[in-house]
Amino acid sequence: MPDLTQRLTELEAEMARQRDHLEIRQLIASYGPMVDTALDLPRASRVAELWTEDGVYDIGAVGSKSGRAEIAHAYEARHFRQAREGICHVMGPPFVQLNGDHATALNYSCVFRPDGENRFYAWRVAANKWELSRVEGRWLVKRRTNRLMNGDSEALAMLGVVDAMVETGDRSPD
Amino acid sequence: MPDLTQRLTELEAEMARQRDHLEIRQLIASYGPMVDTALDLPRASRVAELWTEDGVYDIGAVGSKSGRAEIAHAYEARHFRQAREGICHVMGPPFVQLNGDHATALNYSCVFRPDGENRFYAWRVAANKWELSRVEGRWLVKRRTNRLMNGDSEALAMLGVVDAMVETGDRSPD
Amino acid sequence: MPDLTQRLTELEAEMARQRDHLEIRQLIASYGPMVDTALDLPRASRVAELWTEDGVYDIGAVGSKSGRAEIAHAYEARHFRQAREGICHVMGPPFVQLNGDHATALNYSCVFRPDGENRFYAWRVAANKWELSRVEGRWLVKRRTNRLMNGDSEALAMLGVVDAMVETGDRSPD
Repeated sequence: MPDLTQRLTELEAEMARQRDHLEIRQLIASYGPMVDTALDLPRASRVAELWTEDGVYDIGAVGSKSGRAEIAHAYEARHFRQAREGICHVMGPPFVQLNGDHATALNYSCVFRPDGENRFYAWRVAANKWELSRVEGRWLVKRRTNRLMNGDSEALAMLGVVDAMVETGDRSPD
Repeated sequence: MPDLTQRLTELEAEMARQRDHLEIRQLIASYGPMVDTALDLPRASRVAELWTEDGVYDIGAVGSKSGRAEIAHAYEARHFRQAREGICHVMGPPFVQLNGDHATALNYSCVFRPDGENRFYAWRVAANKWELSRVEGRWLVKRRTNRLMNGDSEALAMLGVVDAMVETGDRSPD
Repeated sequence: MPDLTQRLTELEAEMARQRDHLEIRQLIASYGPMVDTALDLPRASRVAELWTEDGVYDIGAVGSKSGRAEIAHAYEARHFRQAREGICHVMGPPFVQLNGDHATALNYSCVFRPDGENRFYAWRVAANKWELSRVEGRWLVKRRTNRLMNGDSEALAMLGVVDAMVETGDRSPD
């Protein structure tokens, strides 16, 4: 039955591709609820576990944090207080390009905070580039770069790779 | 051909899992356009059909509504008027955990309203927990809990389940 | 092996359906990063290539643009300047209905712009109806209609088709 086997093998490959897209979307969708309930260091450490052991979170003017411990501590300075007041990291839908055990995703994040009664304001509207790796079967963040969308030329240069990503589409594993 | 049969059976299970994720995303994505065009009770009743017959919509300070009729009437007090002025329920991407014929999704909702010319403001930025059930093959809302992200401790407690959801991942049907 | 062949054929059809949903979501997710980095006509022309050759972008009061050249030029009047100041087209999750080589998607778009230091405002919150076609294997925009959510009756009428879309669900290719 070579024909059935061939069709089955192609289906398995396409299914695995769609599963990777789904899991990467899940990873990015989990960030908001995790970070916005991180009121203390133990919970911030859970957020940091979305990164690889040697992962990097490059937050522009806020600095670049390397490794899970540094990423967890990055939330200490002001985030724990903000989370008690209410803060809401809403993600835009990611555009994702797979490349075997690696992937790149681009999306926007809008961070809302309360603005008096019955009103919220967008504090940070930023572009994100997520460089992801599959580690022991699980997608993790290798490097996340975040830049405010306030005319910052780095934000525009970072997002501009979208053209090439759209043209190439997903790449097969080598 | 036990090997092909086994591979096919595994593919069918994974395909069904991905279909459930897709349909739940579709359900949540339909809410905004449905509710924002609900100018009267007949259309609000269509929105309420996204819930199970005995479904609950717990809207915090606005109250908790049980059953489709009560949910439809919940929109009468102010929503019909707001919909005529323009109101926009924008959903954030959901994080979803399947558990057989049940599922839980967490996401944010941002409700925008006009704020003079060429400007809109975020009126309600809220966390949502969607408890979903498959009824006669269709995913419906069994209970939706909505809490403003203004430091409300209930919102933070509700969202905090995300850690356990991320750790467990989808569960298989029993 | 008629049974295995039948199961395989059904899997292939469902897989293709889910792939179409994924690719349409990717197309819509690519729009924000592409348009917000379009500082000049060559890059605006790349954005316009998301449309079919004879595609239409109907932007309400801004006018209706036909064909890729007109769509690219539509960004000249004010968008290039805004993109240098920072502008951010954040998409809401689309509700999608497939119909063979055609598809319809409804979603919201929120366009944020800087509002002084550490604050952004929602300039345009709009409903979008995307009428899509598969051309040589690639999903493209045949017509996109965009209407502000400020009580505009055209926006409400356009979005109101969601009820019928939810009821019908995806249609099979003829």
